[in-house]
Parts: sequence; C-alpha cells; structure tokens
Amino acid sequence: MRAKIQEYLREDIGSGDITSELVVPADDMARGRVVCKEDCVVAGLEEASVVFKELGAKTVRIKQDGSSAKKGEVVLEVVGTARSVLAGERLALNFVMRMSGIATLTSGLVEKAKRVNPGVRVAATRKTTPGFREFEKRAVLLGGGDPHRSGLYDAVLIKDNHIRIAGGVKAALSRARKGSFTKKIEIEVESPEDARTAAREGADIIMLDNFGPEEVRKLSSELKAINPDVLIEASGGIRPDTVEKYAAGADIISLGWLTHSVRSVDFSMEIEKAGPGSH
Amino acid sequence: MRAKIQEYLREDIGSGDITSELVVPADDMARGRVVCKEDCVVAGLEEASVVFKELGAKTVRIKQDGSSAKKGEVVLEVVGTARSVLAGERLALNFVMRMSGIATLTSGLVEKAKRVNPGVRVAATRKTTPGFREFEKRAVLLGGGDPHRSGLYDAVLIKDNHIRIAGGVKAALSRARKGSFTKKIEIEVESPEDARTAAREGADIIMLDNFGPEEVRKLSSELKAINPDVLIEASGGIRPDTVEKYAAGADIISLGWLTHSVRSVDFSMEIEKAGPGSH
Amino acid sequence: MRAKIQEYLREDIGSGDITSELVVPADDMARGRVVCKEDCVVAGLEEASVVFKELGAKTVRIKQDGSSAKKGEVVLEVVGTARSVLAGERLALNFVMRMSGIATLTSGLVEKAKRVNPGVRVAATRKTTPGFREFEKRAVLLGGGDPHRSGLYDAVLIKDNHIRIAGGVKAALSRARKGSFTKKIEIEVESPEDARTAAREGADIIMLDNFGPEEVRKLSSELKAINPDVLIEASGGIRPDTVEKYAAGADIISLGWLTHSVRSVDFSMEIEKAGPGSH
Amino acid sequence: MRAKIQEYLREDIGSGDITSELVVPADDMARGRVVCKEDCVVAGLEEASVVFKELGAKTVRIKQDGSSAKKGEVVLEVVGTARSVLAGERLALNFVMRMSGIATLTSGLVEKAKRVNPGVRVAATRKTTPGFREFEKRAVLLGGGDPHRSGLYDAVLIKDNHIRIAGGVKAALSRARKGSFTKKIEIEVESPEDARTAAREGADIIMLDNFGPEEVRKLSSELKAINPDVLIEASGGIRPDTVEKYAAGADIISLGWLTHSVRSVDFSMEIEKAGPGSH
Amino acid sequence: MRAKIQEYLREDIGSGDITSELVVPADDMARGRVVCKEDCVVAGLEEASVVFKELGAKTVRIKQDGSSAKKGEVVLEVVGTARSVLAGERLALNFVMRMSGIATLTSGLVEKAKRVNPGVRVAATRKTTPGFREFEKRAVLLGGGDPHRSGLYDAVLIKDNHIRIAGGVKAALSRARKGSFTKKIEIEVESPEDARTAAREGADIIMLDNFGPEEVRKLSSELKAINPDVLIEASGGIRPDTVEKYAAGADIISLGWLTHSVRSVDFSMEIEKAGPGSH
Amino acid sequence: MRAKIQEYLREDIGSGDITSELVVPADDMARGRVVCKEDCVVAGLEEASVVFKELGAKTVRIKQDGSSAKKGEVVLEVVGTARSVLAGERLALNFVMRMSGIATLTSGLVEKAKRVNPGVRVAATRKTTPGFREFEKRAVLLGGGDPHRSGLYDAVLIKDNHIRIAGGVKAALSRARKGSFTKKIEIEVESPEDARTAAREGADIIMLDNFGPEEVRKLSSELKAINPDVLIEASGGIRPDTVEKYAAGADIISLGWLTHSVRSVDFSMEIEKAGPGSH
Repeated sequence: MRAKIQEYLREDIGSGDITSELVVPADDMARGRVVCKEDCVVAGLEEASVVFKELGAKTVRIKQDGSSAKKGEVVLEVVGTARSVLAGERLALNFVMRMSGIATLTSGLVEKAKRVNPGVRVAATRKTTPGFREFEKRAVLLGGGDPHRSGLYDAVLIKDNHIRIAGGVKAALSRARKGSFTKKIEIEVESPEDARTAAREGADIIMLDNFGPEEVRKLSSELKAINPDVLIEASGGIRPDTVEKYAAGADIISLGWLTHSVRSVDFSMEIEKAGPGSH
Repeated sequence: MRAKIQEYLREDIGSGDITSELVVPADDMARGRVVCKEDCVVAGLEEASVVFKELGAKTVRIKQDGSSAKKGEVVLEVVGTARSVLAGERLALNFVMRMSGIATLTSGLVEKAKRVNPGVRVAATRKTTPGFREFEKRAVLLGGGDPHRSGLYDAVLIKDNHIRIAGGVKAALSRARKGSFTKKIEIEVESPEDARTAAREGADIIMLDNFGPEEVRKLSSELKAINPDVLIEASGGIRPDTVEKYAAGADIISLGWLTHSVRSVDFSMEIEKAGPGSH
Repeated sequence: MRAKIQEYLREDIGSGDITSELVVPADDMARGRVVCKEDCVVAGLEEASVVFKELGAKTVRIKQDGSSAKKGEVVLEVVGTARSVLAGERLALNFVMRMSGIATLTSGLVEKAKRVNPGVRVAATRKTTPGFREFEKRAVLLGGGDPHRSGLYDAVLIKDNHIRIAGGVKAALSRARKGSFTKKIEIEVESPEDARTAAREGADIIMLDNFGPEEVRKLSSELKAINPDVLIEASGGIRPDTVEKYAAGADIISLGWLTHSVRSVDFSMEIEKAGPGSH
Repeated sequence: MRAKIQEYLREDIGSGDITSELVVPADDMARGRVVCKEDCVVAGLEEASVVFKELGAKTVRIKQDGSSAKKGEVVLEVVGTARSVLAGERLALNFVMRMSGIATLTSGLVEKAKRVNPGVRVAATRKTTPGFREFEKRAVLLGGGDPHRSGLYDAVLIKDNHIRIAGGVKAALSRARKGSFTKKIEIEVESPEDARTAAREGADIIMLDNFGPEEVRKLSSELKAINPDVLIEASGGIRPDTVEKYAAGADIISLGWLTHSVRSVDFSMEIEKAGPGSH
Repeated sequence: MRAKIQEYLREDIGSGDITSELVVPADDMARGRVVCKEDCVVAGLEEASVVFKELGAKTVRIKQDGSSAKKGEVVLEVVGTARSVLAGERLALNFVMRMSGIATLTSGLVEKAKRVNPGVRVAATRKTTPGFREFEKRAVLLGGGDPHRSGLYDAVLIKDNHIRIAGGVKAALSRARKGSFTKKIEIEVESPEDARTAAREGADIIMLDNFGPEEVRKLSSELKAINPDVLIEASGGIRPDTVEKYAAGADIISLGWLTHSVRSVDFSMEIEKAGPGSH
Repeated sequence: MRAKIQEYLREDIGSGDITSELVVPADDMARGRVVCKEDCVVAGLEEASVVFKELGAKTVRIKQDGSSAKKGEVVLEVVGTARSVLAGERLALNFVMRMSGIATLTSGLVEKAKRVNPGVRVAATRKTTPGFREFEKRAVLLGGGDPHRSGLYDAVLIKDNHIRIAGGVKAALSRARKGSFTKKIEIEVESPEDARTAAREGADIIMLDNFGPEEVRKLSSELKAINPDVLIEASGGIRPDTVEKYAAGADIISLGWLTHSVRSVDFSMEIEKAGPGSH
C-alpha cells in the first residue's frame, strides 16, 4: 500500500506544492480534522493515515474503518507541519470520500439482501477504477460485501467469450479441470441448458448472467439437485434497486455498480495552526 | 501513459490469466468489438487501444474520443490472439466506461451552461480517483470542460486553510506574489469582503466558495469593477442540477461531481474466433 | 516477464559489458547456438528468447519448452550483433539451466508417481528462490507438475502456526469460511484427529504434514468417507526418492525439493561470427 | 537490499495474505524462532531480519551470518504482530535455506582445498539465479569463498567467444589493454599455446578452461616463469568432488556448482502467541 | 526527493562499496565534517542530509541552504558508522558542490541586476542536466533567482518552432487561449512586430529572444503601453557578464548558463573515527 | 539507457506538453535539424536519437559521437509528428550540449597531455552530476579520456579517510588484499613516505594527491624502482590549465573539472513543417 500512496502523492504534488511553499512558513505546525458531511459507513481512514505518515505527520483515528459515522462527526485527526497537513489533505479526502461511498452503498445493499436471505453474499466485480482496485475491493469488504476474485490470477472464471472459443461449456470445463487443484472453477452461463451442463460437469460456482430473479430462483433449485455443493451467483445488469429481488434465489449477487457508479460521500478537512508543542 | 497501463495490466493479470491459459489455445486468434450500450460521449478509446497494443493485439477505432455514440454502435475493434484480447478486455472496458461517464456528464453540463452564458467554462477539481487523475482530467477535456490545475505543482491556489495559517487574504497574496512569474495566482474566499481584498491585491482568479448563484452574479460585477482582468470561479457544493444557475454570473463553474460521483456508461465486448489470416 | 528480464539484464550488465566494448567491434554480427550437454526436459527457451529480443537479437527455437532434448542437441539459435549475443549469453543460459533442471526432475517424479496412481499430482511449494518464483513454477508446469498456489494471495492455506494462533482446527476453519466464496480452503494438519475435524468442517483440501506413506493411505480413505470431495495432499519431508511411496494414498504430493534443491542441467552456447547478411 | 526485499514480499503477498486476514486477529502478537534442522554454516540472517523489519516486526539474531550452527539450534528470533510474522515466514526461510546451502557447500570445499594449498581461493561464477546474484555471491563470501566478478561491468574477462570474434588471443588482449587502467584483464584459454601467449601479452589472470588437474599444475609453473605476477584460475567442469585435486596447481578454482546446483539447508519456523507486552 | 536519492546511491554504490567492506570494520563509528573551500552561497545541505539519513547516519546542519559560507567553514556534520559516512561522502559532496555553484552564480547576478532595477528577476531555463532539474531549480531559488517553469506541463510557452507550425503569432495565441484558465500564456518572439502582435492579442508574458539590451528597453515601454500588465522577459544568448545590461529594460532576464555551464564550488569532507558513544 | 531516458522525458513532459497540445495539430508532421553553434567534439547524439525514438520520431545522425563538428554544421536530423519533435527537443539538446562540452574539454586536454607524454591518460573522477554519471563518463571516453571507476563497486580505491580509519597505509593494504582477486587495488597517499610503503606493499595503482608536478615526476621514478608494474595517478586540485605540467611524470592525470565544472557547447534545433509523406 505504501508504494501506491507514494505514487499518488507524486501525482498530486509533482515537482512541489507551490502554494504552500510560498504562503506557509516551513516551521508552522497545524492540526487538521476530517469531518463527515453526511451519514455513512466510513472507509479509507487507514489509507488516509498512511498518507499523512508518509508526509511526516501523525494521525489519530477517531472512527474505525467499517463503522458508521454521523454527519458532523470527526473521523480522523492529524497533527504535523502545516505544509505536510496541507499536502496530504486532498489525497486523504479522496481516499475517504470514494471508499466511504463504496462501503456505504455496499452496506445498505447487504442489509437489504440479508433481510430476505441471511446467507446471501453481495459481491463486487472487476469493474473497478484502473490501478485503484485494491482499495475499492477493501471498501466493499468493509461494507460487508464479498470482494470476489482480485484479478485474472486468483480464480478460474470461464466467461461467455471463453466458452465460444473453447467450443462449448463441456469442453471449457474439461480443460479447466487440468488447472491447479488449488483453484475453484466458476463458469458464466446464459441459458438454463448450459447451467445444467455446468452443474453436471462439476463447476464449483455457476454464474447466471442476465437471468431474471424468478428464473434464478427456479434454476438454482434445479442445479443444487444435480450438485448440492454448487454455488449460484446471479450477475449481469443488476442495480442497487434490484439486488433485493435476487436475494431469495442466489448464493451470491454480484454487481459492478458498487465500484463503477458509486457516489462519493462528502468529507472536509478543517485545519488550524497548532503550537509548536502540539506535535 | 504506457507505464500506467502496464501497471494496470499487472493489477488485473498478476501472475497470469489462469482461465485463458487453461481454456484457450495459445495460437487461437480472435476479433473483439466494443459496443456501446447507451447513448453517450465516448472517451477512453485511445487508452483502450494502448491496452491491446501492449498485449500485442491490433485495434481500429471506429469512433473518435470526444464524439457521440449511440446505443448499439461499435466504437472499437480489436484483432489478436484470443488470449491477448481476453486479457485486455476488462481493463479496456474499465477505461471506456468510466471515461465515457465523465465525458458524457461534462458535455451535458457544458451545453446547459453555455446556453445561458456562451463564455462560461465548466471545470473539474482535484477530487479524482487517486492515481487515475490524468485520465479523468482528459475525459473532462473530451467532454468540453476545463481540467483546472493538474496538481499542487502547476498553479497557485490559496485556499481557506492557507489563508488561516498565513493570517489573512492580504498577507497570503503578498507572499504568493514572490512565486515564479510564470504562475497565475488564484485565491478561494468565503466572504464578499475577502473577495474585494483579493481583487484589490491583484489575484488573477478569485474562487467564490459556497456562494449562492445570485451572490456570485452580484459580486462578480463588483470585483470586475475593481480589476477588469480578474476571473471569477464559482465553486463549493455545486451539483449537476445547479450548474445552470451559476452560469450567468461566473467565468468558471467547478464541481468535484464530474470526477468523484459519476455513473459509468455501459459498454460490452463481443469476441469471436478469427481465422489465422485475420491478424 | 519483460520487466523481470530487463531487471536481470541490468543485474548482469550494469554500467556496461566492458569486455565486449573493448574486444568486439560494434558492427560485428554473430550467430549463437544453445547446446544441451545432457539428456533432459528443456525449459526456459521462451525466457531466453525474450532475453535476446530485449538486446535486439533474433532467435529461432529448435526445441519447444517442455519437450525432451538429448545431449548434443541444439535447442535455440540466435543471430544478432556479436555484442548483443555475448551480453545475453549468461542470462539466457542461467534461465535454461535452472528451469530445465526443475522440469527434468519434476517430469521424472511425475512419471514414477503416475505409474503407481495415474490420477496423482506432483506439486511444488512456495520454497522458491526469492524473485524467481514465476519461472520456477512455470518449469514445474512444463515438467508435468502442479504449481500449487502462487503466493499468499490466491488460495487459503491454514498452516500449523495459524491453527495455533486461532485456537484449533475448528476455530480456524470457521473463520476461513468467511472469506471470499471464490477461494478454496486448504488446511495443514499434524494429527489424524485434526484431519478428521478438518474433513467434517468442510475443508476443501487437507494437507497431511509429515505423515508416513502408509498413514497417508489409511487416513485418506477415512477422510473421503467423511467428505467424498475432499482432496488429500501429502507434504513435509518428502524427497525425490520417497515420492513414489506416497503416490498410492494421496491426491497430491508436494515437495520443496523441486525448487529449492535442484541440480541445474548443463547447457553451453557456441558463438561464431556471422556475415552482415545473416541478420 | 531493501528494494529487492520489498519486491520479494510483493511476489509472495501480492494483493494480500488472505489466510492470515481471515484466521488471525489483527492485533494478536506472536514470537517466532527460526530453527536449524541440520548442521551447517548459516547465512541469510541479515536478509531475514530486513524481511521482518519491512513488515514491522523486530528480530534478534542468535547466530551471526557465516558462523556454524548445529541441528536444533535457534538462529533468529522475531517478535511482532502475528500477521507480520506469518507474512514474512516463507521469504525469510527461503533466504536462509538457500544462502546457508551455498555457504555450507562453499565452506566445506574451501576447507578441503586449503588443506592442500593454503593460498588457494575457491570462487563462484556468474551462473547464478537471475535477480538473486547479490545474495548468492554474499553466501559464497560468508562460506569463505571468493565472489569473483559481480557482472559484465566490473572486470574484463575475455572468453572463448570473444577470442573467436577478435581473431585470436593476442588481438583480443591488445584491444583489452585500451580499457580503463582501473580494471584487471582476465582471459580464458583452451590450449597451452594460448595460455603462453596470454602470459607473454600481459594478462593479469589466465583462466584454464577444462584442463585436467595435472595439466593445470604443470602449465601454471610454466606461465609463472613467463610472468611471476600472473594468477592462474582453473575452471570448467569442476565439481565439488574434484575441487581438491585442482588445489595444488591453481591460485583460484571456480565452479558454477556453488550457486546453480546447491541443495538448500532445512530450517523451520516455530511461531507462538505472545502477550501484548512482548513487542 | 528520497526516491531520487536512493537512485543516486544505487548509481554510486551498485553491488557494494568494495573498498570499505574490506578496509573498514563494520562496527567502527566515524564523524565527518563538510568543509567549504571557497566563499560561496551554500546549497544542497538538505539533500546531503537525506543522503546520510538514507544510509543510517545522522547529520547536523551548521549552515542553512541559501546562506553565505566562507572558505574553511564547516557547513554540515555527520555521525554514523564509518561505512555509511564513507558510502555517502561522494554523493553528498556532489550535491553540495554543484548546487552551491549554481546558487553562488545566481546570487551574484541577482545582486548586480537588482542594483540596476530592484524589481527585476533573474530566471533559469529548462537547459538543465537531465534528471537533476529539481535540484538545479532549487539552487537557483536559493540563490535568489526565479526557477521559471518546471517543465512542459506547468505553463504555456509558445516558442519560435510552435509559431512556425501554427502559422504565426496571432494564430498561435488564439489557439493557446483555449487552454485551461489556470495557466499563463507566454510567447517567444524574434521581431518587434511579433512582439506588438503578442501584446495586442493578450499574451501574459512576452519573451524577447536575442534582442540587444537597448532594444529590449525600448520595446518594453512600447509593449507596456499596449498592455500595462504584460511582463517582458529578455532571453537568448545572455551570459553572466551581460545580465546587468539587460536589467534596466526587462522584468525578467533568463539564461541557461545558470544551470548548463556553472563551475562547481569546492567542498571536501574530513572524516575521523568516533567513539561508540558518539552516535 | 532507455529507462533513464524515459525518466528524463517524464521530468520534462510530466502531465503533458500543454503548449503543443493547444497550438500544434496532432497530425502535423515536422522535420528538425540539430545545429552546432561552435566548433566542438560532438557527443550525445546516440542519446538524442533514443529520446526521439521513444517519442515515435525517426532520426538520422549526420555526425558520429566523438567526431569533430564545426559551427553551423547539422549533426542530427529528426522527422516525426510536430508534437513528438517539440516534446523531445529540449531533452535531446540538453544531452548534446552537456556531453559535447565534456567531450570537447577532454579532447583538448588529452591532446595537450599526449604531446608531452604519448602514454599518459587523462581520467575523470566520481565528481559527476548525480544520476547522470553514465553519460558524463561516456562523454569523457568519446573525448579520448579514461572514465576511471564507475562507482564504489568496480575497483578498490583506498582514500585518506579509509587509511585513517584502518590505521595506516600498511594495515589498509593488508586488508584490501583479502578482496576478490578480480579487482585492482588503488591507494591515495598524501606523503612520499606513504607512497613508498604503498609501492612496497603491492598496490596496483598509487594516487598522489595534491603533489606538485615536479614532485610527481621524481616520486614516480622512485616508486617504479620499487615496483616496475605500479601505475602512478596524479590527482587533487588539477585544473585544465595545469594538466600539461603533470603529463611528464604521471601515468594518469585525473581531474573532477571534466565533469563538475564544464561549460556546455551551444546547439540549437530548427524545426519546420514536413509533408505527410516525409515520415
């Protein structure tokens, strides 16, 4: 994480924070408070702390990542040279705003879905902002969701395009079983017939792509009759307002919305001069 | 850009695309088409092309970045080994979906605002996804917006926290004028009185933070009477639905929403086997 | 892979190949042949080709990675400036020698083990040379082995130290089940009792650590009676000469020896001047 | 070294140690002991310490690199969060196991060779694992061997292929003398005649490639009669069991075996929960 | 800055400081004093401190960057292991010698120019040593000069070649005005006519390239009559001995000499053994 | 070299060449000519070519590195998109100007020194610009000088500070002889007595630090009587105008001036629009 945060600081600071270098004396100390501007599940405080630490300032987390925060609450305090606090302000807030947006949305959907089916999982996808995936996945986790696979390297997921090239569900699964015994095999299907083949051929997880909630429920029972251990994932075109409907029939509901269309939660930072002894 | 895209590919592919290595023969060729699923201003095609080029595949851009695309239109074609097309699919789409989301929103707001005031600019902020700023700023530009400064290094912007530490608008501006003659000096103010001081002290740009549309209009006239060359930027709490109201009174309207709370535009990729001669 | 190979070239060439710069004219062309000095399963030719490509030379693979080569056979040819061929020689050979050593050992053990039990897998571990794991794992794969997990990130493997900290097998498995549904759960046990608990608690894979071959066989039957889908991995202190004995009773036999104590296969490179037209 | 170790940690941990994150509470402290499983010359403890330091844990070295350790002895202790100790365990052991293997083999050969000829040096070659050379060379040094040159950049070594391209030993040496006065010139020869030419032309070191032990002894006397300051290095096809035979006649005996075919020494790590005050 | 300094240490130390490893015991402590060998404005002490800090040694700055130092004065003290002090010596001195050379030259020219025209600025250019620009620009600043733009990214500067391609001053300025409102627009002109066009078209800064001092003075008055806010920069072929002549007529005098042809100031480092308690 | 040049391009271009993006159409082609503004030995053309190649433009070298160029001569031509030619212009010129400055100064001093003593070498030191050493050393080589060691890693050089810590010349040399047989041992001495000890103790090179030309000559004869193979290097406070005086008595004359106080040679680039067919 530190390497990423150093990269992000370079992105924002580049050849220097020319405003602070001009306006703020090098030795002035400051205290900053990150304040929540709307109720949310807060996330990104760990990252924000590392941001300030990299710049030589010290932080105290008033709230923990994954907990609820109310409008007006202080979630993080920072003390350091005024220049370091100012240099880290935007990056720290960008972390907290976006990650809290994701955690808050996820948390709301998990709560709704679990009310219908306590065992269901709400999962993210690989539809993340390039380079920022680890933080978006962590925010999903903090909101109570399942991060799903991290990338192409940590689980086998046979998608429509793979099946087309392999020449069908059966051929694709047969090839996939030659992979390392350490990995699960998931397959995405677009028809009930393919779903049944997948269940019979031993897929560990079957992703039902673009099926309606009712179809998912019926097909799920049928597939579990074939293989009781198979997991059923509903995916494709699911939106925040349709998650609940899928909860009854699926083990997992996955939606890109959690990471690609989320609204940030508003936070701001209030900075004031601090005495030299306050560091 | 290439270094970033290599980093993003590592993020997604890591130690290897284990599905394609198992399911897709190494020599199979494929053709992919990126299809637009809703009307939009398309962006990110240049980035998507570099993604596939890094993986050894070739692309043809059917649409140009910044142009309009209709639901169902193909915007990009790619030909290469099936493994390379599959390995780049998600990253390419993540670029196009997010950047088109930003370009589309920006374009709509610019159009609305210019109808009121043809000279007005709609500008982004530094509230971007960490590490991904250059692409989000480029999407704003493609949508007809102004990217604003790139980071802390390329323009002086004195904010509330700077003023507090410097001890007032006048002191802050006086210090800032010692900076390089190559940089403009912008200052953010929260009261009409501070705005007037800033205009008198020679600020190049005055950002009116959290003023109402009507206040902005009146104050702007007053400030231009003091200094005809000063530019007035309205900022703070502006949302897509209030942009229009600020258009009459400001030279620039800036809002974080363009980059921190945008909904992605939906795109998908259709891949089919291609003959060996099609490369 | 390219980034790694660039790093390796820097390691060997550093501030310059001072011998060739002095002794070899800049425009001289040369042809090199990589020759096998003992019978083996060859591996590393893809990597060797990238080495020379990075240096601007061209290669022809006479043998394919994973195939058998006899003493005296040429496996790769390279043509380029004499300086580039000489600069890449050592790195290319280091790849081929070590990777062929691993592939050859693996291949021999896989053959022996499959004679006893055709369904058994011979697997590597994480006991690899730091930084060089991807190539060592690939060599295992080319020799017909299973690479096992790539690192701590792509599969859950609860080891003795985890169990101790978690407070027992049951507690550890219970916590692990909260992880992403996309990952298998493997657990290492040191007693039959723990093995039975693990099977009952739904572990996907049970690693029997430091059990004798006969114990593995008996326990395996017992555990599959509890859960027919569980996979049994024998591990701990297994050496090339004991692999065969474990083959009857285990689904997987894993040993660090494949990567941490392998003898390299000897290869050499013969270089001769080439005419200018031979490039 | 730190940059390398950070790279190695990324290799193993990647997007996260998913097992520990699930099974081990974030605040649990642990104490680990690295235990030697067979008599050896220990090496890699410095590297192992840096591994744990990078992860925020603290270490105490019980043994020093280069000293002897007996089976069962603890060589290193580590205290930190259980997650950090577990995350560093494999990498630390991989360092210690491989480096101790090299140091132990080197030490044994040096002892044998010096019994015959107290002034002789046993040297490594560039036949190292790509990327890991600095550690393998250091292990040779800790075992009492000579690391030889670090790469192509720090000494002139004219090999058979250079001679062929330059058009003979004399021509090659004549060109090499134009290099910086700061570098020694070594040349590899395959015939007594070439060796004599090299001695007459002022080579600082003559490497006798693939000569028998008796030939090396006789030729060495002859060459030192020509140039008393010349150093004679025996190389090519020398194995651990033939080192001793070459000791009488050569100043240096070099063999790739030290780094390319070494057996790792077995070490393990025992981890137990530690109280919060033990950090 | 730390990443750069780590890169510079790698450049000098590479695979190891072989002299100190042989000659200096690992535990010996040493104290070093950086001594000024000629009167100067000192710069680079901050960088030198980071060099030693990276190597684990501690420093005390006796002088501050930007202050004057007399021949024989100590400017920096360092205490640490003898090996760390020796390993950092050359890099630290290289920083201080070059940066003090730039600061001293700049300071002298600023003083001369301000005697003629107290408001004038002496500015650097982009004619810097590749990779070392940030330090050379900082040295200019410490000497009282203006760093000018940092690169192509932070200010618009339309040069002769741009004008030629754009088809004239007017066309070029018209296009440039479409850029972000946050950036100033500077244009380089080679004739009085082009200068007048530039002033009329609203350029923020006009660079008069290769004009004589007298021409600059006359043209400057004329241009300020057109646009009182325009800044006039004299540039092109200005040398240390001609700076003074341009001071009367220009707002800014820029010259590449400050960074591309500066003579280093001589500094040396005296190192002595320190007791173990002195760390 | 490519990695360095990519870093340098990032330094100059950063988040984008905002001038060219505004003023120069993306598809315009241009041709540039690098013109020499004063007689010199040209260097850096290879680097300049790589700069433009990285940006997608093509170059033709009219002059070769290390050859003489007259004022007004074109040394390099480049053709590409106008944006790429403009983006690379400054970096390419910065390479050529500084490296030609070094090569020209070196060449002049070598010529003068060799007139006195044809066997003498003029050598650089480690007093180089941080990060840019490889290019400065290469320029010295192109000017006919000796680059001396590349860093602390490729030759043993015992300096005054080492001797002080080791406790004298004899002790220091005795320790140094335990280093790898592949490295020469050089020692810096400040008194004739130490020089004699060094010669007797087998130093390969003795650096006479801050001796006068006449002292060097006398001492050199004396030292060669002790050890005929020893090389004598004069160093310390030597300036361009005193090189000649040292030529008679030393084998090598080294001076930091070559790299730390050199004046750049002036070059400029003329760019004109090129037709689309000219690429």
